[in-house]
Amino acid sequence: MNKLVIFGVGLIGGSVALALKKAGAGTHIVGVGRSFESLQTAKNLGVIDSVETNIQAACKDADLILIAAPVAQTTAILQSIKPHLNTQTVITDAGSTKSDVLAAAKIVLGEQFNQFVGGHPIAGAEKSGVTAAKADLFVGKNVVLTPENLHNIQDDALQASNHAASHIRLSASALSENGDDLYGYRASKIARVADMWKTCGANVTEMSAENHDKIFAAVSHLPHLLAFALVDDIAKRPNAEQLFSFAASGFRDFTRIAGSHPEMWRDISLANKTALLSEITAFQTELTLVKNLLENNDGAGLLALFERASVARNAWAKNKQ
Amino acid sequence: MNKLVIFGVGLIGGSVALALKKAGAGTHIVGVGRSFESLQTAKNLGVIDSVETNIQAACKDADLILIAAPVAQTTAILQSIKPHLNTQTVITDAGSTKSDVLAAAKIVLGEQFNQFVGGHPIAGAEKSGVTAAKADLFVGKNVVLTPENLHNIQDDALQASNHAASHIRLSASALSENGDDLYGYRASKIARVADMWKTCGANVTEMSAENHDKIFAAVSHLPHLLAFALVDDIAKRPNAEQLFSFAASGFRDFTRIAGSHPEMWRDISLANKTALLSEITAFQTELTLVKNLLENNDGAGLLALFERASVARNAWAKNKQ
Repeated sequence: MNKLVIFGVGLIGGSVALALKKAGAGTHIVGVGRSFESLQTAKNLGVIDSVETNIQAACKDADLILIAAPVAQTTAILQSIKPHLNTQTVITDAGSTKSDVLAAAKIVLGEQFNQFVGGHPIAGAEKSGVTAAKADLFVGKNVVLTPENLHNIQDDALQASNHAASHIRLSASALSENGDDLYGYRASKIARVADMWKTCGANVTEMSAENHDKIFAAVSHLPHLLAFALVDDIAKRPNAEQLFSFAASGFRDFTRIAGSHPEMWRDISLANKTALLSEITAFQTELTLVKNLLENNDGAGLLALFERASVARNAWAKNKQ
Repeated sequence: MNKLVIFGVGLIGGSVALALKKAGAGTHIVGVGRSFESLQTAKNLGVIDSVETNIQAACKDADLILIAAPVAQTTAILQSIKPHLNTQTVITDAGSTKSDVLAAAKIVLGEQFNQFVGGHPIAGAEKSGVTAAKADLFVGKNVVLTPENLHNIQDDALQASNHAASHIRLSASALSENGDDLYGYRASKIARVADMWKTCGANVTEMSAENHDKIFAAVSHLPHLLAFALVDDIAKRPNAEQLFSFAASGFRDFTRIAGSHPEMWRDISLANKTALLSEITAFQTELTLVKNLLENNDGAGLLALFERASVARNAWAKNKQ
């Protein structure tokens, strides 16, 4: 990859750039963004090779464009790119929800939509901005790619295997081997994005945008909503100050994500509304189950539920180490 | 305090003993427990001064008896103490729920119930047992005392002030100043327990057992139930393995308490059933509110809720530092 253009050189974009440099990828990395000062900082820090304020010049001969700006800017960025988009350029993004991004890309890019590959790196840090960027941010982390054209194929594969992520890792090269030109063309584009993330040390998985959004509604978006809801429920009470004064380490960890960025989570919640509503409903059912066990003094039932949860949680934590 | 008897020299009991020694309290500390081997370890480590297997001998001339064994043993321990209980001895405990402990103490101790002062140190550690004990476990931590006889006075005070913990810190000395012999007698007993915890570096607060149980249902027991419920909800699904494989740091912190001891949390849940059911109902109402905001695409409403929560959570975390 000769030329990578990053829209939004913050924590994510900056860390991709640093990781590629550390890996000796030899790619020329161009930064584009709203704040010239911030881009200049990125250049001074050696994160990017050059700053470009002209979109046409930025897009010229670009192999890959990574949109790593706040998701609310995605449509506007795609619109600014569209008139200058070379047919050999691939565009990807780093947003937390994928169905909405793909829908926006489809509308803006039209017949060039097949040059777009949705992406979601599952990595972050407490701090944001290019000064927080680091070369190892993605090492061992998951990156999910959602190449919409392969949607149906992968959902079938998922249903057939009814299994874990490893089973749906239909690699781009495997798909290209079927000899279908369309898939071959798509596969090379997907591979370009996958290669970038692999060079950053990430584990790359492909799935449909719909499946991605369902998974993250369950393991990320719902927990965030529950944490926000719990803190809000307490903060609204007349004795909130007293309640908070007795909250300890369990509360601290449980509610850490309730300190997250409100605008970002409003956007994620609305973008992933359908899957999130379905998760809330499932959780309400589970909570009613717990409530019934408690109302019936069903110690054995409560113990069984707590054991299932603690075994699963501790096994998960051990695996993640 | 000349003689302290600790039933259950584990993390909590052992840490109290170490803290008193570090403070140079000069108290003779006697360990009692089911495992002679564990008590011998505590003695060899210098945590306690002597091991006593005879309950009568242990109780003789004891100024204070601290029950720090698993809560399920509390009634049996109180029954073993009762026949040997000197009128000048004070008994306290370290259980996570207080109404149930006080009810048990009332039944077992009868007219000597006024020698019992409920206690709950809000401190813990990942590991348990005397080898995990440390002298600074309670430094800066809250300890709640629930002297049942003062129940009504304190609830009135709470309602009148409608305010935070500082307002219900009716110190034992302040109460004794009203010249009432009953309160004077109780106050000296409460002061003995409070002094022990203060010597350990803790912040001591008094309140009714009912109020204690309501507070901890909100800030501790409900979060535990929600974490257990979320993990169980995911673990039961056919694609659980895939879901867990994409769970990241937000999930890790949110569910840390779902790895807690199942038996302990069954016991706490059942012991604090009334307050916990009320908290579940309140949370269900809050969750329905969030769901409605989402269903109505009410971005402003979601943002307001997330902002209330994040502001409150970050202010809490800053205060705790």
